[in-house]
Amino acid sequence: MAERVITPRSEDYAQWYQDVVAQAEMAEAAGVVKGCMVVRPHGWAVWEKMQADMDRRFKKTGHKNAAFPLLIPMSFIQKEAEHVEGFAPELAVVTHAGGKELEEPYVIRPTSETIIGHFFSKWIDSWRDLPMLINQWGNVMRWELRTRLFLRTGEFYWQEGHTAHATHAEALEEVERMLDVYRDFCHEHIAMPVIRGIKTEHERFAGAIETRCIEGMMQDGKALQCGTSHDLAQNFGKAFDIMFQNENGEREYVWQTSWGSSTRLVGALVMSHSDDNGLVLPPRVAPIHVVIVPIYRKDEEKGPVLEAAHRIAAELREDGLDVELDDREGIKPGAKYYEWERKGVPVRVEIGPRDLESESVMIKRRIADVDERGKPMKEKLPMADLGIAIGKVLDEFQTFLFDRSKKRLDENTIQVDTWEEFTDVFSGQNSKFVYAHWDGTTETELAIKEATKATIRCIPHPEDGPSPEGGKCIKTGAASRQRVLFAKNY
Amino acid sequence: MAERVITPRSEDYAQWYQDVVAQAEMAEAAGVVKGCMVVRPHGWAVWEKMQADMDRRFKKTGHKNAAFPLLIPMSFIQKEAEHVEGFAPELAVVTHAGGKELEEPYVIRPTSETIIGHFFSKWIDSWRDLPMLINQWGNVMRWELRTRLFLRTGEFYWQEGHTAHATHAEALEEVERMLDVYRDFCHEHIAMPVIRGIKTEHERFAGAIETRCIEGMMQDGKALQCGTSHDLAQNFGKAFDIMFQNENGEREYVWQTSWGSSTRLVGALVMSHSDDNGLVLPPRVAPIHVVIVPIYRKDEEKGPVLEAAHRIAAELREDGLDVELDDREGIKPGAKYYEWERKGVPVRVEIGPRDLESESVMIKRRIADVDERGKPMKEKLPMADLGIAIGKVLDEFQTFLFDRSKKRLDENTIQVDTWEEFTDVFSGQNSKFVYAHWDGTTETELAIKEATKATIRCIPHPEDGPSPEGGKCIKTGAASRQRVLFAKNY
Repeated sequence: MAERVITPRSEDYAQWYQDVVAQAEMAEAAGVVKGCMVVRPHGWAVWEKMQADMDRRFKKTGHKNAAFPLLIPMSFIQKEAEHVEGFAPELAVVTHAGGKELEEPYVIRPTSETIIGHFFSKWIDSWRDLPMLINQWGNVMRWELRTRLFLRTGEFYWQEGHTAHATHAEALEEVERMLDVYRDFCHEHIAMPVIRGIKTEHERFAGAIETRCIEGMMQDGKALQCGTSHDLAQNFGKAFDIMFQNENGEREYVWQTSWGSSTRLVGALVMSHSDDNGLVLPPRVAPIHVVIVPIYRKDEEKGPVLEAAHRIAAELREDGLDVELDDREGIKPGAKYYEWERKGVPVRVEIGPRDLESESVMIKRRIADVDERGKPMKEKLPMADLGIAIGKVLDEFQTFLFDRSKKRLDENTIQVDTWEEFTDVFSGQNSKFVYAHWDGTTETELAIKEATKATIRCIPHPEDGPSPEGGKCIKTGAASRQRVLFAKNY
Repeated sequence: MAERVITPRSEDYAQWYQDVVAQAEMAEAAGVVKGCMVVRPHGWAVWEKMQADMDRRFKKTGHKNAAFPLLIPMSFIQKEAEHVEGFAPELAVVTHAGGKELEEPYVIRPTSETIIGHFFSKWIDSWRDLPMLINQWGNVMRWELRTRLFLRTGEFYWQEGHTAHATHAEALEEVERMLDVYRDFCHEHIAMPVIRGIKTEHERFAGAIETRCIEGMMQDGKALQCGTSHDLAQNFGKAFDIMFQNENGEREYVWQTSWGSSTRLVGALVMSHSDDNGLVLPPRVAPIHVVIVPIYRKDEEKGPVLEAAHRIAAELREDGLDVELDDREGIKPGAKYYEWERKGVPVRVEIGPRDLESESVMIKRRIADVDERGKPMKEKLPMADLGIAIGKVLDEFQTFLFDRSKKRLDENTIQVDTWEEFTDVFSGQNSKFVYAHWDGTTETELAIKEATKATIRCIPHPEDGPSPEGGKCIKTGAASRQRVLFAKNY
């Protein structure tokens, strides 16, 4: 039995998360750079898989990538009143460069609405230039005190979409379109169901008139915001003088949107699927689909087993799978099994002398049913057409993970109508997704948070939450137009 | 005839470069962020194509991507004596963050040897951990006064490889391997021949004991450094205490390398192939391989022509080509031709009513032979199997561009043995690649630069330059072991 390196969830959920990330060698705190992280190769490879698919979706919906400066003049941040109020406390400021003090300091971008707005004002002249649909992949910096790997760090990696439209209606369509792109990505790739909705005024992006979001449920029932899409209206258009001549020859301000998702999604993935043995990766975002572990005892077995292992690896790669062949010497198969389990590889292939005779291999899924003695079951698969068979196993595993997350979400989502029950639900460490009535005021929102630590995650999309109907606020008893989603959150 | 928007090369080469970049909408100076640039979608799409292929080559040679902090503690930069001397004048410094003055300032990374060295010291313990082969894609900042889009900007985009090895011999193999990866990429993808070589002590990376480089020749005969690969020996190992236990149980410092290439390569591409009509893109790095321009006059022609154009676009995309169908209304075909020429699209497909009848299309290469009247020639290709035929045209065009660049390099590379001839070669605006003897001292190197503006680009690799043989220094007459490569440079 391997030594215990991962704290069980039941014992300490926060420590479990840290252990999983550390043991899978995904990331670590930078330490010497306050609040920042190093994303190690296994973590970055997951993010690259996510990026590739999201990028495909962005391009399919007509967006083009570009790169804008990392530094933003301080005066730019101050041009939109709510924007500066929201971001000023978190800014990192460059005051010196090239050996001199700067006349005007720059900030490291916390987000790029301002600098991109400046260039939109140069590039947009006529209705023919619209819509302008830009995305940027990069790093941003928001000075944070309480940090947590992937979930909240000073520097993080993300994409930010920025678009300009001729009408508010078109901008709103874009806001919804991109929220659905995020939702589809989470469902189809991260195997994590999410709830779409609208943020309250208190939780809105600084500078937007409306923020839409998707919220996922982690294994402790807490919510994690996984992507946002903002209706910026003409706020930045007016601040940065972004005007276009419409078809009637009149000058108008553009209508803008912005939308973002980040390396937080890696944290969401970890907390959605992993277990006490370590990381669990949905096949579609797994950098390694299959690890092959050759098994032999005697010297005369080694040659034929390794030869077969290499041949199978080559065949599986031909079939488009990402394969790792672990032929390290001096490490026992069992130790290899544990290591690759901790790294979340979906399928393990074991191949030994007896498998050569029967022209088959043993495979084990990262999460397998157990037999009557509680031992995880393996499956015997013929070597012929192994790639097709494993492809099927991976598809099933992807579906299994989504279904499991969906079941957890459904089982931990409730409607609550009394304050007593509400406080009871949120009294422990964990959380649920609670639909309850709210009177629509920030005052009540904050009072509920103060009393229970639960926040309003969103006003749910009619398709994703209970259908809107009136009621009485859980806290004040005042009139409510519809139930909103409460949960503790990351 | 379209209005002239690009200054001819013969008139003003520097202005021509700026015009090509601007008219292709590849990038522009940020203006409000001193020395920085905005990479616009067409420029970023070229960089993405380059990144994809380079990344494939890095992974094939065993490297894994990771992400290290953007900010580096000031004290880190100061740990390696030559490193700080080289980079201190170009640093951008963060002194304030989160509303407070920092106890120790951070610099925005100009390169990441120091911060990565710090983490290598944490991750490397035994010979089993070696080699450690890491690459990072990202942005860096070097405060520059004289900037030029893509070639030299304050912030730029690049990849930096960082590796650690058990022996100096293995590290040297890596230095050479990665230089060859860069060379192969330039030859096979950018269609630009390069000369490999070793930098003089004066031109070496600050902190390396040897810097290898590849140098390309631009159309004005000047050199552009297109990639570097450094032997760091144990310099950073000692500065950051990166030790490992060898197989005999002894503690040793690791041997390190680093290697980098950047968005400069986009500038190299522009200056290698473009002409007075604008950008010319080698097909392998072209974001758009084919633009289809439908041609019709009468209303009844429009429907069938557009239908065929869409069908052909879909077929070509099926064949793996990146296709743009320019069906914009209100813009004449001629204006579309000029626009896509300026953007460097390798092949244009014209389709009109008569082409429908003959089930063929007219195609035009971005650079075509001219007929007896000086008009660029078009080719008629059958609609059937058009993707295969265009694929062949693209392959030929890629080869044509490489051969043309190679011919220019060969024709403008000379050996010079007298100071009079040497000064004569470098007396005008342009440059050549000149192999001449040098006495090996920095003093002479600087004196030659002072007198002629020519610098030593490299001590050439024996396979890429004249075979080493002794001689007398072109300037001082002192003994020389071999000819080195002189040129004016970007």
